[in-house]
Amino acid sequence: MRTRDLARLTWPEVREAVDARTGVVLPVGATEQHGPHLPLATDSIFATDLARAVAEPADLVVAPTLSYGYRSRPLSGGGQGFAGTTSLRGATLVALAEDVLRELLRHGFERVVVLSWHYENQNFVYEAAYLAAAGQERARVMVMEAPFAELSESTMEALFPDGFPGWATEHASIMETSLMLHLHPEAVLLDRAVDDRSARTPWWDVVPTPPDLVPASGTLWKATQGTADKGRLVWEDIVGQVTAAVLEELPPAG
Amino acid sequence: MRTRDLARLTWPEVREAVDARTGVVLPVGATEQHGPHLPLATDSIFATDLARAVAEPADLVVAPTLSYGYRSRPLSGGGQGFAGTTSLRGATLVALAEDVLRELLRHGFERVVVLSWHYENQNFVYEAAYLAAAGQERARVMVMEAPFAELSESTMEALFPDGFPGWATEHASIMETSLMLHLHPEAVLLDRAVDDRSARTPWWDVVPTPPDLVPASGTLWKATQGTADKGRLVWEDIVGQVTAAVLEELPPAG
Amino acid sequence: MRTRDLARLTWPEVREAVDARTGVVLPVGATEQHGPHLPLATDSIFATDLARAVAEPADLVVAPTLSYGYRSRPLSGGGQGFAGTTSLRGATLVALAEDVLRELLRHGFERVVVLSWHYENQNFVYEAAYLAAAGQERARVMVMEAPFAELSESTMEALFPDGFPGWATEHASIMETSLMLHLHPEAVLLDRAVDDRSARTPWWDVVPTPPDLVPASGTLWKATQGTADKGRLVWEDIVGQVTAAVLEELPPAG
Amino acid sequence: MRTRDLARLTWPEVREAVDARTGVVLPVGATEQHGPHLPLATDSIFATDLARAVAEPADLVVAPTLSYGYRSRPLSGGGQGFAGTTSLRGATLVALAEDVLRELLRHGFERVVVLSWHYENQNFVYEAAYLAAAGQERARVMVMEAPFAELSESTMEALFPDGFPGWATEHASIMETSLMLHLHPEAVLLDRAVDDRSARTPWWDVVPTPPDLVPASGTLWKATQGTADKGRLVWEDIVGQVTAAVLEELPPAG
Amino acid sequence: MRTRDLARLTWPEVREAVDARTGVVLPVGATEQHGPHLPLATDSIFATDLARAVAEPADLVVAPTLSYGYRSRPLSGGGQGFAGTTSLRGATLVALAEDVLRELLRHGFERVVVLSWHYENQNFVYEAAYLAAAGQERARVMVMEAPFAELSESTMEALFPDGFPGWATEHASIMETSLMLHLHPEAVLLDRAVDDRSARTPWWDVVPTPPDLVPASGTLWKATQGTADKGRLVWEDIVGQVTAAVLEELPPAG
Amino acid sequence: MRTRDLARLTWPEVREAVDARTGVVLPVGATEQHGPHLPLATDSIFATDLARAVAEPADLVVAPTLSYGYRSRPLSGGGQGFAGTTSLRGATLVALAEDVLRELLRHGFERVVVLSWHYENQNFVYEAAYLAAAGQERARVMVMEAPFAELSESTMEALFPDGFPGWATEHASIMETSLMLHLHPEAVLLDRAVDDRSARTPWWDVVPTPPDLVPASGTLWKATQGTADKGRLVWEDIVGQVTAAVLEELPPAG
Repeated sequence: MRTRDLARLTWPEVREAVDARTGVVLPVGATEQHGPHLPLATDSIFATDLARAVAEPADLVVAPTLSYGYRSRPLSGGGQGFAGTTSLRGATLVALAEDVLRELLRHGFERVVVLSWHYENQNFVYEAAYLAAAGQERARVMVMEAPFAELSESTMEALFPDGFPGWATEHASIMETSLMLHLHPEAVLLDRAVDDRSARTPWWDVVPTPPDLVPASGTLWKATQGTADKGRLVWEDIVGQVTAAVLEELPPAG
Repeated sequence: MRTRDLARLTWPEVREAVDARTGVVLPVGATEQHGPHLPLATDSIFATDLARAVAEPADLVVAPTLSYGYRSRPLSGGGQGFAGTTSLRGATLVALAEDVLRELLRHGFERVVVLSWHYENQNFVYEAAYLAAAGQERARVMVMEAPFAELSESTMEALFPDGFPGWATEHASIMETSLMLHLHPEAVLLDRAVDDRSARTPWWDVVPTPPDLVPASGTLWKATQGTADKGRLVWEDIVGQVTAAVLEELPPAG
Repeated sequence: MRTRDLARLTWPEVREAVDARTGVVLPVGATEQHGPHLPLATDSIFATDLARAVAEPADLVVAPTLSYGYRSRPLSGGGQGFAGTTSLRGATLVALAEDVLRELLRHGFERVVVLSWHYENQNFVYEAAYLAAAGQERARVMVMEAPFAELSESTMEALFPDGFPGWATEHASIMETSLMLHLHPEAVLLDRAVDDRSARTPWWDVVPTPPDLVPASGTLWKATQGTADKGRLVWEDIVGQVTAAVLEELPPAG
Repeated sequence: MRTRDLARLTWPEVREAVDARTGVVLPVGATEQHGPHLPLATDSIFATDLARAVAEPADLVVAPTLSYGYRSRPLSGGGQGFAGTTSLRGATLVALAEDVLRELLRHGFERVVVLSWHYENQNFVYEAAYLAAAGQERARVMVMEAPFAELSESTMEALFPDGFPGWATEHASIMETSLMLHLHPEAVLLDRAVDDRSARTPWWDVVPTPPDLVPASGTLWKATQGTADKGRLVWEDIVGQVTAAVLEELPPAG
Repeated sequence: MRTRDLARLTWPEVREAVDARTGVVLPVGATEQHGPHLPLATDSIFATDLARAVAEPADLVVAPTLSYGYRSRPLSGGGQGFAGTTSLRGATLVALAEDVLRELLRHGFERVVVLSWHYENQNFVYEAAYLAAAGQERARVMVMEAPFAELSESTMEALFPDGFPGWATEHASIMETSLMLHLHPEAVLLDRAVDDRSARTPWWDVVPTPPDLVPASGTLWKATQGTADKGRLVWEDIVGQVTAAVLEELPPAG
Repeated sequence: MRTRDLARLTWPEVREAVDARTGVVLPVGATEQHGPHLPLATDSIFATDLARAVAEPADLVVAPTLSYGYRSRPLSGGGQGFAGTTSLRGATLVALAEDVLRELLRHGFERVVVLSWHYENQNFVYEAAYLAAAGQERARVMVMEAPFAELSESTMEALFPDGFPGWATEHASIMETSLMLHLHPEAVLLDRAVDDRSARTPWWDVVPTPPDLVPASGTLWKATQGTADKGRLVWEDIVGQVTAAVLEELPPAG
């Protein structure tokens, strides 16, 4: 295939891809603050890069990324209060992802993957897939809502030598900083990276957001411990797992 | 207060409660299969009972439970395929909870708690609270989406002597069976309880649901290990934590 | 059947009920002020109790009650201005009832009854049933929007010896007070019951509500004339009529 | 005023009307079968004519009629099964009426009347008025959902010498045929008028509509008893009542 | 046919029309300021009159006009700021037109025309037609969003001797004034007609509307050049073209 | 500014941009067939590149592009029938653009530009801007729905030496092919470019789409006449005009 980027294909090439039982992956990210050192696009970049890394081995094309996600929540993204955090209502995200998936199914794709990198998109992207795929049996839609959640034990140890704080807290922190240093080092303002923490991290949430649930910097934990080496380790782990998952659930033709 | 059940009060009594800065808790459950031994109402029962247990110590009244929740997902509830599993669209659940919360805020309640017991309600109840509470600063809405997620280590050990399989799998299994045996033993058909498991439990989801993600019985793990003693332990742990949480976040008057 | 309460059944029991052509009734009530002597749950209680009373003779199971209804209107419920009156937008009530009915039909129930006790739910529950049942011919949905509207002449005379003021005005008044005294006397604060009336009762409505359409107490007429005896009379009349209606329209198997 | 028809005015004339505290009435009708002798527009015609008759004495202008109403129900309009019955979903009617009312309030009208002639529009037009008027106190919106419901005793006796069958049944029957013969005799195909009745007229409703709830002709009762004389009597009664109502509730300037 | 006005037909006549393969046209207009000399109904009048003119030669019946359209935009209608301009949200217009078209298709009409006269309705009426007609192949819906856009060269020259300013600017100006003088001279306040222009007419739009995009009078160009003779010329041209279009695209039976 | 790409900024940089009165531009494109020689992303590429070209001179940052647009219409995009054409419902596009704009306004941006390159997005993006900007006066939103529509006479002559066929037809044809050859020559499969035309190009539209409105290749006119030189000419013309427009309507600080 000339390119795995669906939007760079012409329509006859899409027709051929469908006929060859090539699948399609829809990356879903967010436009959300990631501390003073990482770009707003962090989640969208990871979702897109991951989709691209998996596309070739799993025989998929990559649909245009949904760059806006559900509202940032304080305990997993700092909340809506930071400049630049640009979010959708839940209903809008569902409608958007549903429409796109419904169209991809209409084109004839039978192997469809939703690949989300943004904790807060959970359940909304599932609902979209459920609505789009209802009433047909020809195609299957895989929904990956936390593709980073199943790292191997060795990766976890390398990544979190001081102990794992939970995925929610892993926002603009060790893993994401490491990944960005590995994938796009030029996008990281490393000298501005800080370790931070909200004054409280309860197991419940509150609206309107109380200030003490929000760290001043937008970093939810230790950004300074991120390194490109850790990033490479995590990335290879994730790419491997996601690839294996697609091959297991939606095996390509031949 | 004559009763903590909001719906059993008269309107002048509600007025008095609001004036005394009493808060209100909205239980959100589901109508969802829970294996061959537990009732469809299991989640609604736990949400309601928990709200009632917390009401007195945390000075809350209990609003009528939302008895229908978001669609059951195969890996945390068996999926939509079982007779009796009666679910709402995501948009409906959001609208319903938003309307109710908006009304409770309109009455003047300043201490509002959403207490959900159904993994799949996550994010939808948060969105509802976000929408209802937006644009006002007088009141705060706590959102508890997994009130069972922070059990003490000793409870966890007592509950899962063979190791903890993850909360998603804890559906109609040890914890829920134990809790129901403690709270409403007459509602359990213990002789029909079985241990079960789906053929696969991947970290992703798929729609339409592949049959091998669904255990035939609807029980996702070990129901037979449930006991009333374990139930009491868990219950006291949870009630204690939820009470403490409300007292911390939304301290009552005086 | 072990119980007629759908939510207390297990999923295999629901499957059996469907196979036996047992039907299902969905009670729809409201959370609405009912004067200083009756609980907010009055409408929900009557809808639920009526469904339960009919369930056995008409071979139905009772789905979890929709406890919140459409906005209270001043001339039939006192309006939205009383503390505790907690209502849904019209669109939300339609979506909620539609989702639940659609699911009940999906389970295979062919005999479905919507039993509403709240004047203001009219048309909204019909729309929900219309939307849920459209495009299928297997099942039928009965919609009862005013199950109290066809009392026998003798009951009417016993109930309203001074003349019948119209059903709209019958809110928290003779009939509802009597019914509650018969069914749940402990829920009535009889010493606080008053007779009341709004300063005007025009045949039109106005928004925003003019104060002179609202009685100060929330009682729309004569609460003090309610008695348990009248309640029993009315109740038996209504239960008889609703039972006969279901047997006529949706005859059970065998 | 040059004309009472809002749509025939120019914008400077509307500005003047608003400044003079002139009000506005929005007629809401339906496009619905009315037997073999009356036009589909029957309800819209009555709503519009009534608005026009009241406009001068009550100092109102008449906004363009909403010509499509909520779905016809079998027991009050024959149901959706007749050719030409062209109805809106409940949600569409609410949105439409809400938008129009919101705009009329935005223009500065303080005296606003919704005048509906179609049983099935009930509650939907109220919800629209509620939504449009919420959050402002300057203007009042009167909602007339059954302007024919309060005829004087003498009119009733003249109209229904054999007894009154209830308003629901009064569809394409004595009153509507009489009114049309009085107002627009050329629109009546009197030689095709028939008396009819559905095989059953229960107090509940059913979806999908059972055939025996629908009279073959679409006439719900006695069309042949309609006369222009009766029509004049009814019309004068209604016009008088609606005029008096507006003058009472929304008195004009000066 | 007794009349081409759908709403003036009885239901058996609609049945016959459908059986004869007669089509239906839905006029869509607006309630929008048209300068100090033309009525708010101008667009609705043209849409309705045009539909009526075409009905006989193209064998169509005319459905009740949608009298309210999408929001007036400053550069093609003066914007929302004039008293009397009464508009719908985009979503409401789509839902309204979709519902009506869906019903007309349900009646069996196979030749359906949407005839809009209001620049701002563009795309919204197309979306409505798309949604209503999706999933069926029996019927076709023509969508005419600018039936005035293809005048013959000679008409254009007669109409715009000083040059054609573009259709957007043709609001309450030469063409519309001429048409109204031809069709309904009594509806024109010719002595109040003025030539006008906004201070700026950029190729983009701005919200909220800057005052210099709005001409004080609401007339977007030269109203005083309108004459009945020009109106007749334009009208015959348009009626001819629309008739030919329907005969080409949706040829009637026989 | 380090980069004009909003998503590549960190949140403190966004804060600074807002404080400096820098504006923001939201590109809106489509994922739509563009013949056998241009990529599906053509519209999104042009919208994004144009936004980037204007960003520096007009002091704007570029928000993440909306890559999916409204349904392709046969006469301006070939319609929905080509593989890969992946479109949104009108309501979804409105909600998406409204949410994003509302967030950008919330961040404090006062100079906001919507830059759409896809004929079919018209009115939908305007509605989104209208809804997002309503009720505030601080910021202004420019809406550019056809930024290519005002080319200079000399550019038009160079581009269309055989005469201008109208913008609708300019899909995957001379202008777009030229622009892509100028901007991204590697994205053009020039040897597959064809000249084409639908059998009919009426001034109305039809749903479902009749086959003779669709050219087999998806090219609506002459793709082979595109050259990089023409592309440069057009591009410089458009960039100049859009830049001037923003500087006129939303002048930057100082």
